[in-house]
Amino acid sequence: MRLKRIGIVGLGLMGGSAALALEKELPEATFIGFDHNMMHCKEAIERGIVSHCVENLAQLSDCDLIILAVPVDAIITILRSLEGLLSNETTVVDFGSTKAKISAAIPASIRRNVVTAHPMAGTEKFGPSAALEDLYTDKTVVICDIEKSGTHQRHVAEKLFTLLKMRCVYMDSEAHDRHAAYISHMPHAVSYALANTVMRQEDRESIVALAGGGFKDMSRIAKSNPAMWEDIFRQNKTHLLEAIYGFEKELKACRKMVENEAWEALNDWMQRANSLHDIL
Amino acid sequence: MRLKRIGIVGLGLMGGSAALALEKELPEATFIGFDHNMMHCKEAIERGIVSHCVENLAQLSDCDLIILAVPVDAIITILRSLEGLLSNETTVVDFGSTKAKISAAIPASIRRNVVTAHPMAGTEKFGPSAALEDLYTDKTVVICDIEKSGTHQRHVAEKLFTLLKMRCVYMDSEAHDRHAAYISHMPHAVSYALANTVMRQEDRESIVALAGGGFKDMSRIAKSNPAMWEDIFRQNKTHLLEAIYGFEKELKACRKMVENEAWEALNDWMQRANSLHDIL
Repeated sequence: MRLKRIGIVGLGLMGGSAALALEKELPEATFIGFDHNMMHCKEAIERGIVSHCVENLAQLSDCDLIILAVPVDAIITILRSLEGLLSNETTVVDFGSTKAKISAAIPASIRRNVVTAHPMAGTEKFGPSAALEDLYTDKTVVICDIEKSGTHQRHVAEKLFTLLKMRCVYMDSEAHDRHAAYISHMPHAVSYALANTVMRQEDRESIVALAGGGFKDMSRIAKSNPAMWEDIFRQNKTHLLEAIYGFEKELKACRKMVENEAWEALNDWMQRANSLHDIL
Repeated sequence: MRLKRIGIVGLGLMGGSAALALEKELPEATFIGFDHNMMHCKEAIERGIVSHCVENLAQLSDCDLIILAVPVDAIITILRSLEGLLSNETTVVDFGSTKAKISAAIPASIRRNVVTAHPMAGTEKFGPSAALEDLYTDKTVVICDIEKSGTHQRHVAEKLFTLLKMRCVYMDSEAHDRHAAYISHMPHAVSYALANTVMRQEDRESIVALAGGGFKDMSRIAKSNPAMWEDIFRQNKTHLLEAIYGFEKELKACRKMVENEAWEALNDWMQRANSLHDIL
């Protein structure tokens, strides 16, 4: 299969990291960028993430592979505007953190061109300067509704994720969104809430002096990009709310045990959480 | 000042790490262990954390410095049983994560012997095998109610924390417990609740396949020792509950914004959390 021209839509952490990793594996390929932020285009060219940038999506229509690595609402807008621009051989892979609304929004005429995927990788940083060559190495990518993609496109996507050294997991987009709500999206809401609680209560000096590894780890993802996470929360609203209710119930149970001084039950509850040891 | 004989009560992560770091700085000193877990004594001797162990606290009475690195309820029991065993020159430093109940429980006759401190360092691991020579390096230690300690003991404690390469911060034990509830204890409750929510909902395979760095970081401290944290929650109950209420209110505000699709307000709320960037 031909992987000579690769379009990277969104030159931030995710798109930039994919380009850096692929350039090592595909030294002959040309990487072409698209980003509405002109500073990001400039920075991505300077860092060697892409060779040049284009100003409209139509200029990517001769690409063999187009990676969409923009916030999830923008992915939907871009997929709609790609209608009529793609040949049968073009493969578009989106890297969005939600899957059901994206999968449903792909225009029927280009449905076979698109593989909708969620690479389970990231950091709280963003922009081309955050791109890391090994961001995806040894991580999992969830590929959704694969039966709706063309055979050629499926092969290109599998080749892409092999080059990124990722493990592929397949599920339907609804199942993905339910799992992602619990394992990724709700924990982000919790981290944002934790950061806001502590900053509301504590002054800067106390936070700097007293923050140990636990608080630093737990508040790290509260530094994530709000524009990106607003879109994810909007698109995965129902599952996210279910996961937040579940978490609220669990924390309330903890609070009640402390209020009622049910120390033995609290210890059992902590022991149950400890069993995560055996999994991760 | 003389630091020839150093007693380490509790040979886990905290006590073991202190001994490993001090041995490098005080090659002439003898380190003597005490731990009710005989396997820990054996392991600590094998790892060179202590040269030998004693079976009762009275055998530590000729130590220049005794470090108490056991769960916070056990610290109180041990401080009470040290009464009558210490000379005017002995310094006892406790490393407990709560301070008010410990400070208040120190018998008056040995109050000047004791410096009550909280090194803001740790990992989720425990036991002598978890000890790390550089656990304390560049971290903060909060020293409480220092006016109640003797001048000699104050100097020994400051020497100890200098040898451990720590920054000293001074506050009264009530203020410490309020800050620690927000910055350390409540985040542990949140992490335990997060781990239990996800394990209740998700099967092992999904957790392994889908857990990214965010969830791993946020659930890491849910692997902490329940016996240790049960005691901390008990001793700091009032401040912990206040911090949990504060967090619950903040997360509920987030949930309401998602329910009401108040996306702009949600974005602002996330932006506020983002400002943690400027602090940590």
